Amino acid sequence: MPTRPLDVLNRSLKSPVIVRLKGGREFRGRLDGYDIHMNLVLVDAEEIQNGEVVRKIGSVLVRGDTVVFISPAPGGD
Amino acid sequence: MPTRPLDVLNRSLKSPVIVRLKGGREFRGRLDGYDIHMNLVLVDAEEIQNGEVVRKIGSVLVRGDTVVFISPAPGGD
Amino acid sequence: MPTRPLDVLNRSLKSPVIVRLKGGREFRGRLDGYDIHMNLVLVDAEEIQNGEVVRKIGSVLVRGDTVVFISPAPGGD
Amino acid sequence: MPTRPLDVLNRSLKSPVIVRLKGGREFRGRLDGYDIHMNLVLVDAEEIQNGEVVRKIGSVLVRGDTVVFISPAPGGD
Amino acid sequence: MPTRPLDVLNRSLKSPVIVRLKGGREFRGRLDGYDIHMNLVLVDAEEIQNGEVVRKIGSVLVRGDTVVFISPAPGGD
Amino acid sequence: MPTRPLDVLNRSLKSPVIVRLKGGREFRGRLDGYDIHMNLVLVDAEEIQNGEVVRKIGSVLVRGDTVVFISPAPGGD
Amino acid sequence: MPTRPLDVLNRSLKSPVIVRLKGGREFRGRLDGYDIHMNLVLVDAEEIQNGEVVRKIGSVLVRGDTVVFISPAPGGD
Repeated sequence: MPTRPLDVLNRSLKSPVIVRLKGGREFRGRLDGYDIHMNLVLVDAEEIQNGEVVRKIGSVLVRGDTVVFISPAPGGD
Repeated sequence: MPTRPLDVLNRSLKSPVIVRLKGGREFRGRLDGYDIHMNLVLVDAEEIQNGEVVRKIGSVLVRGDTVVFISPAPGGD
Repeated sequence: MPTRPLDVLNRSLKSPVIVRLKGGREFRGRLDGYDIHMNLVLVDAEEIQNGEVVRKIGSVLVRGDTVVFISPAPGGD
Repeated sequence: MPTRPLDVLNRSLKSPVIVRLKGGREFRGRLDGYDIHMNLVLVDAEEIQNGEVVRKIGSVLVRGDTVVFISPAPGGD
Repeated sequence: MPTRPLDVLNRSLKSPVIVRLKGGREFRGRLDGYDIHMNLVLVDAEEIQNGEVVRKIGSVLVRGDTVVFISPAPGGD
Repeated sequence: MPTRPLDVLNRSLKSPVIVRLKGGREFRGRLDGYDIHMNLVLVDAEEIQNGEVVRKIGSVLVRGDTVVFISPAPGGD
Repeated sequence: MPTRPLDVLNRSLKSPVIVRLKGGREFRGRLDGYDIHMNLVLVDAEEIQNGEVVRKIGSVLVRGDTVVFISPAPGGD
């Protein structure tokens, strides 16, 4: 059975994800919520640029329309 | 229970937040209001570029479609 | 009580505001009207680039989708 | 009483206006029509780049979503 | 009486038009059809870049959302 | 009688077309399907950059919102 | 009979596809799901830049509005 796109988000709740944004920035953190616009809530998040952590953020709301992709991050990298 | 994205805004009312805009600008200020488009009202705000305060603004209405992310700023940084 | 974003516009009617546009331009002028798309009418307006007035405009209709932020300008700066 | 944004267009019918487009181009001409998307009809128009007239156009339909601002041009400049 | 923007298209049917696209390209050709999205059908068309014809195209469907302006081309230029 | 834009697509079914994308890429191939968003299905397609074939693709689904224009390609060029 | 664009996705379920994104990135992987916005779920995916694999990703949700094209990848390349 195929996977519906939002199922990926649902299965990732409370788990670490990688979020790539338009413009190249990336967040890693635990997915704490989402809505159908793919607005995302991440907690214990890190903002990453060129592979380096540039900021640690306790919790962050990312606007869905800036998201390129979201990927479950099972182990770490 | 997962966090709905707009809950993050609701819980941040009257508290300091960091708002990143498309193009790299950033605002810090107290969140004084929002709507479902993520239009935001900030008071006692500072506009930041490359880590430096470039303007202090008593109150500002930021259009939601220019927002990349919003993060509660519990302590300061 | 939180401030609804359009309230900021309503309270600024007939008062000076600063309007930042995508691409970096800025207008200053008295807010003479707006609609829910944040289309704005400014009168006695100045267009500003890199901090300098590049044009004086009696009245101007600014399309909402080019607006980044709007800020009441109580005293001047 | 505040001015509704489309009122500015209505009052400018048959009068000269300046229209700034995204990307920096500008048209000057008489406003001969508009719709709620801010699609504009200009007649006796000039296209201007860097302050110089680059083309004279009898009549032109400008798509609203490329417009940054529209300003009545009472005298000339 | 003001001219409705789509009237300009209707009056230009079967006549030569100039179509400027976002990014600077331009088409000239006879307007053979359009819809309310400003999707355009041109026949006997030429694609122009920097003032030079870079391609002749028997017929072409141009997406409305790439259009900047459309102008009747009564004589030629 | 004017040509409706989607008629151009309908008449081009099973025939070779040229599809220009935003950003300058181009596809050539037989049009095998489309929908009202101008999402296109091409078969026996070639991706072209700067006039050279950079990839041959058996079949491809092109998102309508990346399309600039579509042109029937009667003979070849 | 013409092929409806979403049919291409349906026929590609569980099969390898190439997905080109705006900005030039590319994913290869097995298509595990999609929706009408062309949001895509890929598994056993590789992110490719300039022809080189830059990251392996177990599963990824790609936002439809960043997609340029999707192509079944029957053999490999």
